[in-house]
Amino acid sequence: MSSRLRGNLIVGQSGGATAVINASLVGAFEGALEEERFDGIYGMRYGIEGFLKEDLIDLRRQPAEVWPRLLHTPSAALGSCRYKLQADDLERAIAIFRRYNIRYLLYIGGNDSADTAHRLAQAAEHIGYDLYAIGVPKTIDNDLPFTDHCPGYGSAARFIAMATMDSAMNTIAIPSHYPVKVIETMGRDAGWLAAASALGKRNEVDPPHIILMPEYRFNPERYLERVEAVYRDIGYAIVVVSEAVLDEHGQPLGAIGQVGRDAFQHPLLSGAAQQLVELVQQHLKLRARFDKPGDLQRMASNCISRTDRDEAYLVGKMGIRALLDGETDKMVTLVRHTVPAYHCTTGLVGLAGIANAQRLMPDDYLDASKTMVTQAFYDYALPLIGDPLPEYARLENIRIER
Amino acid sequence: MSSRLRGNLIVGQSGGATAVINASLVGAFEGALEEERFDGIYGMRYGIEGFLKEDLIDLRRQPAEVWPRLLHTPSAALGSCRYKLQADDLERAIAIFRRYNIRYLLYIGGNDSADTAHRLAQAAEHIGYDLYAIGVPKTIDNDLPFTDHCPGYGSAARFIAMATMDSAMNTIAIPSHYPVKVIETMGRDAGWLAAASALGKRNEVDPPHIILMPEYRFNPERYLERVEAVYRDIGYAIVVVSEAVLDEHGQPLGAIGQVGRDAFQHPLLSGAAQQLVELVQQHLKLRARFDKPGDLQRMASNCISRTDRDEAYLVGKMGIRALLDGETDKMVTLVRHTVPAYHCTTGLVGLAGIANAQRLMPDDYLDASKTMVTQAFYDYALPLIGDPLPEYARLENIRIER
Repeated sequence: MSSRLRGNLIVGQSGGATAVINASLVGAFEGALEEERFDGIYGMRYGIEGFLKEDLIDLRRQPAEVWPRLLHTPSAALGSCRYKLQADDLERAIAIFRRYNIRYLLYIGGNDSADTAHRLAQAAEHIGYDLYAIGVPKTIDNDLPFTDHCPGYGSAARFIAMATMDSAMNTIAIPSHYPVKVIETMGRDAGWLAAASALGKRNEVDPPHIILMPEYRFNPERYLERVEAVYRDIGYAIVVVSEAVLDEHGQPLGAIGQVGRDAFQHPLLSGAAQQLVELVQQHLKLRARFDKPGDLQRMASNCISRTDRDEAYLVGKMGIRALLDGETDKMVTLVRHTVPAYHCTTGLVGLAGIANAQRLMPDDYLDASKTMVTQAFYDYALPLIGDPLPEYARLENIRIER
Repeated sequence: MSSRLRGNLIVGQSGGATAVINASLVGAFEGALEEERFDGIYGMRYGIEGFLKEDLIDLRRQPAEVWPRLLHTPSAALGSCRYKLQADDLERAIAIFRRYNIRYLLYIGGNDSADTAHRLAQAAEHIGYDLYAIGVPKTIDNDLPFTDHCPGYGSAARFIAMATMDSAMNTIAIPSHYPVKVIETMGRDAGWLAAASALGKRNEVDPPHIILMPEYRFNPERYLERVEAVYRDIGYAIVVVSEAVLDEHGQPLGAIGQVGRDAFQHPLLSGAAQQLVELVQQHLKLRARFDKPGDLQRMASNCISRTDRDEAYLVGKMGIRALLDGETDKMVTLVRHTVPAYHCTTGLVGLAGIANAQRLMPDDYLDASKTMVTQAFYDYALPLIGDPLPEYARLENIRIER
């Protein structure tokens, strides 16, 4: 196929939004603006779901001042969706591409969105419609394979690291009130977000003390033993749990609050932290409470990692570059370099390998207990969260004697 | 009484910590350092509870660099407590004051802490021990009477305003996924924190759409009607609920998760948001989910309001001034001025009137529905949260037609 084709470009955002997904949109738009090959630059409202309803907007005609401001605006400005393409959607989608002479598709999203972009690319090829389709990675879950990490993760990781530091500061000031604190993070199948809670931890006593990740089944006896041991040692315990942790029978720990399944048949959960709190209250007779920052971890604009934002912009811009290079059915990846200092360039990988695949936490990022991260994880994750985390002051225990 | 008395000064922090309570400690320390009348400058570890165990530290001998850093460190660096003085504690406390020649007490806290300081001042007078005791206000709940507002509230209000804006951005991007979002705030008996969720709201469509405050009993029918109406109008609904809202029978909405009572016989709650989510799922058949930022709202160091921090510093420093002026059994208050622009000076009020009293949201800060704030509340609260809230960019709906 040739990439000399003139035509319209469309950009979509899909899946759970992040604090920096708009930076990828801005990168794409600014990249496209420099090129003559695109006539219209369109946006899908609400991803492929809106596209199938021909809900398209004109990005060229947006006020110029919107673009720099979008760099600091969390969430998906185009609107997003969690819609799984049905068989008869594909033909319809290609017909709409044809109707609007759309030849270039940039789709910003996670695993399921890669699946969508891949199937659109395949359908176009099958039907014989010249379409270039590139995926741009995005997910706070950080679970896409082949890319060093995913835009959106750095900011969510920064939020969770700071939330753990901050929330634990309250427990430390008044451990007798609620000696056990549970913080619930997102993370569908992988523990990347829960692991990020340790990024502000500088020694054994610092929080968190126990991290429960979905890669490992939950064992209530071991959990209670560990909480009790930490409590005995330092007077309180900070536990971080991924909302998707499974119990010994493979049931979600929070299934008590289960509220159905989403369009991709992923269970919708609530309640893991609540469960952990109740176990502590019942069996250890300790007061416990939980924080569940929920969507704040994907959205908090004052926890945006500059590195994450810059990389989100980069992958958007490089997605346009790939389209112009005649690439299709591929996703942009981030490629890490450490010399002279941490930075990323980009690569490309086939969408087929991304769709519905997941990268879990590697073994060497967790210690033998499987409830704490290793130095290898710090080396991996600290560069992603941008500016250094604050170091809080402590008073020295210089006692007054009578 | 004379304030020419030489002796030692002790400072304590008490009750739930805030993001700026350490600024009051720094203000007190720096104020005290300038004065010759204080020999030792001591700190209580864990408030009066630690004091009764003679857990005292030397603040003069702390490294100098700790003080500026404490201005940016959330939580109570001295440690805090929620301990209600027992009758026989009073005599013991006075004996300890005497033993360490402590003549000046500055106690930073909320309603219950004012009660503690008041009873210590009274006991000292009764026993004939010369003690000057001043309370310094602190509470994210903003429910102390006689002061325009409470240090700690501005930062928590800023957090809740931003959390509501940010979390709602996710719902707005993908309303079909979870059209109803509930955000649970703290706030024991007063709706000040829940009300702050509206501070980023600029029009009817902006979140939040419904605020449930503890001043008004919860009516499930009215709640469901209102959620349904908002959902019909704009496609989603953002609800903010105070954790302490009571149902029609006077039971906490979240009593389902009730876990006992604290030392002051205040019920410890969890579950209001969970309850509201379940009601929506059951009766409206809409998907709903909740965020419960919990202790983050009192602790988030990246949401500190500069105004709040400056005022927390000021009340600490002015507490020392009051001690030197020979005042006792009083609390420092913030006095608002609006000419030429918003600023605060301080006043004093008797501790007896503060202890165990609460200031609820005034009627004119709520509209007729009692679920939304009025302009009067914006005028009151916006100056307290420091820098203006961000204005997020939105794409204009410039449609592409075939």
